[in-house]
Amino acid sequence: MTSPIPSRAAEIRRDPVSNRWVIFSPARAKRPTDFKSKTPQNPNPNPDSSCPFCLGNEHHCAPEIFRVPPHDPEWKIRVIENLYPALSRNLGDGDPFVGTGDSGRFSINGIGFHDVVIESPVHSVQLSDLEASEIGDVLLAFKKRIEQIARCEYIQYAQVFKNHGASAGASMSHSHSQILALPIIPPTVSDRIDGTKEYFDQTGKCCLCEVQSKDLLIEETTYFISIAPFAATFPFEIWIIPRDHSPHFHELNLEKVVDLGGMLKLMLRNMSLQLNNPPFNLMIQTSPLQITDTQLPYTHWFLQIVPQLTSVGGFEIGSGCYINPVFPEDAAKVLREVNLNVTMS
Amino acid sequence: MTSPIPSRAAEIRRDPVSNRWVIFSPARAKRPTDFKSKTPQNPNPNPDSSCPFCLGNEHHCAPEIFRVPPHDPEWKIRVIENLYPALSRNLGDGDPFVGTGDSGRFSINGIGFHDVVIESPVHSVQLSDLEASEIGDVLLAFKKRIEQIARCEYIQYAQVFKNHGASAGASMSHSHSQILALPIIPPTVSDRIDGTKEYFDQTGKCCLCEVQSKDLLIEETTYFISIAPFAATFPFEIWIIPRDHSPHFHELNLEKVVDLGGMLKLMLRNMSLQLNNPPFNLMIQTSPLQITDTQLPYTHWFLQIVPQLTSVGGFEIGSGCYINPVFPEDAAKVLREVNLNVTMS
Repeated sequence: MTSPIPSRAAEIRRDPVSNRWVIFSPARAKRPTDFKSKTPQNPNPNPDSSCPFCLGNEHHCAPEIFRVPPHDPEWKIRVIENLYPALSRNLGDGDPFVGTGDSGRFSINGIGFHDVVIESPVHSVQLSDLEASEIGDVLLAFKKRIEQIARCEYIQYAQVFKNHGASAGASMSHSHSQILALPIIPPTVSDRIDGTKEYFDQTGKCCLCEVQSKDLLIEETTYFISIAPFAATFPFEIWIIPRDHSPHFHELNLEKVVDLGGMLKLMLRNMSLQLNNPPFNLMIQTSPLQITDTQLPYTHWFLQIVPQLTSVGGFEIGSGCYINPVFPEDAAKVLREVNLNVTMS
Repeated sequence: MTSPIPSRAAEIRRDPVSNRWVIFSPARAKRPTDFKSKTPQNPNPNPDSSCPFCLGNEHHCAPEIFRVPPHDPEWKIRVIENLYPALSRNLGDGDPFVGTGDSGRFSINGIGFHDVVIESPVHSVQLSDLEASEIGDVLLAFKKRIEQIARCEYIQYAQVFKNHGASAGASMSHSHSQILALPIIPPTVSDRIDGTKEYFDQTGKCCLCEVQSKDLLIEETTYFISIAPFAATFPFEIWIIPRDHSPHFHELNLEKVVDLGGMLKLMLRNMSLQLNNPPFNLMIQTSPLQITDTQLPYTHWFLQIVPQLTSVGGFEIGSGCYINPVFPEDAAKVLREVNLNVTMS
């Protein structure tokens, strides 16, 4: 797969985006590829006649929000309510923000939306099996649903995420993503706004427009780059970043969506080949919904992919500081090398 | 174990200590005790003649820092260097803070201390098996080692943590804790200082001196209380808090240490009985080492216990916001009930 990389001294790096420190400690591993997954995910799970996400079993699901194509019994994508939502879409009688105790300063009602995006009607098809344009259609479904959600003025943020594999948190094997729309701005997002604002105040530039290191680059397309981030929290973490400054994912246009679909497919394939088809999480890191682009010259959306290769323990829970045993430069090299092999074959 | 608790509506709570939001969503579970561990830890693993932490195998370990009692071949506790340290204790030739690029603003050398505290010479003895005074001796070993570390002026924080069980991050089954001494103030600690300062600025009080809710109380001793925190990140998370305001764990005196040993033993036993001996993490949340108590009227150290009962997925990684399916009031009730049963039997 790859040749041994000379050992490095431990280093502590600060991510300019989140402003958080990560410990890079290669002492525990000889080679980056020693981190290949020991629990690979079955890429083609058997169809299950009882799976509610399969074509024909729609009546076992919570209500549908929309499908693609619209009204077509032979749908390609369905956006539905989550049968076990973390937040309630029913406002009830009262003001959503009347919390218990201390005038809601420390508690608000659990209102919001928790939706599921079924990415294919076929049980055995994974996201990375789809064509670039089909992945683009899934991204367009995210965009459309976020635009609908953004009309609710009490929703502050929509977290799009995908759990692939049971150990990455997936309870259903049929390929799907989720959208959790929140009445608050979550910690990662407020940290990101603070971190990128600090960089902007000091340099006059957006720190994600500024990514320049060739060592961290994995791949480039017309509208996107993919990198191993300078202070990656997790080994082999990947960010796909739009080249042009853009705070909100849902402002993506049709042309860019297909380009992004191709880049995402490539990254999922490279990760799968080099790391033994690991369980993974995929997240869209966007900006708060009720803040306009002109108010945000410093935040820049990106797509984050995290393979699940290491476990979290008391140090990480206690300190919020992570230990990453693989330097991003080495991870980028491993994730690039597969391209060369495929191109040459 | 416990009777069903009437279902509650979802609620979003903000922890005044960390200033972070947590979603409480009981819709996914009928009863708090449905969260009992499905992977209980063997309380008495077989002795393993090759275990380097066992009495007689000291020569397989990295260098010893001290033992209790001092110089005694029949030691009770050993504090040693970690054989695979995340940070290097060798400063090398240069200034520890000359980082790469951008004048070290985003990178510093990975210096620090990574120690292991072996809590018993006997392989099959777990921390909760020790007497209160013996647990107190382990806490005194933490205190002594932190005091030594604090003399290095470039060390900003010492994270004491324990991983119990493989899925909680433990790579050795012989009971031990770790101390990772960092040249930075980690995110959880700076968030805690900011959160408690905000509370102090608004109320003139320390928010952990102020915990009053009887619903959250689990147990009381002379010098400590244990609670399920108001906005617990994890189901059945427990905090043991000193009654008197105190920023630094390592200022604990001998009398309080034995009292804390008893409280910790009780909480570990209650958790084990009610949740089927789950894997868990234990963390000491203290204050930065180079800041004096008079500078910190608002931070208050505590001991945090987190049983590993749920998995983390893309929502948590992406947003930094956690979904807790068990309300702390219900968790406290479950963790209290075991006391009644034992007292009555």
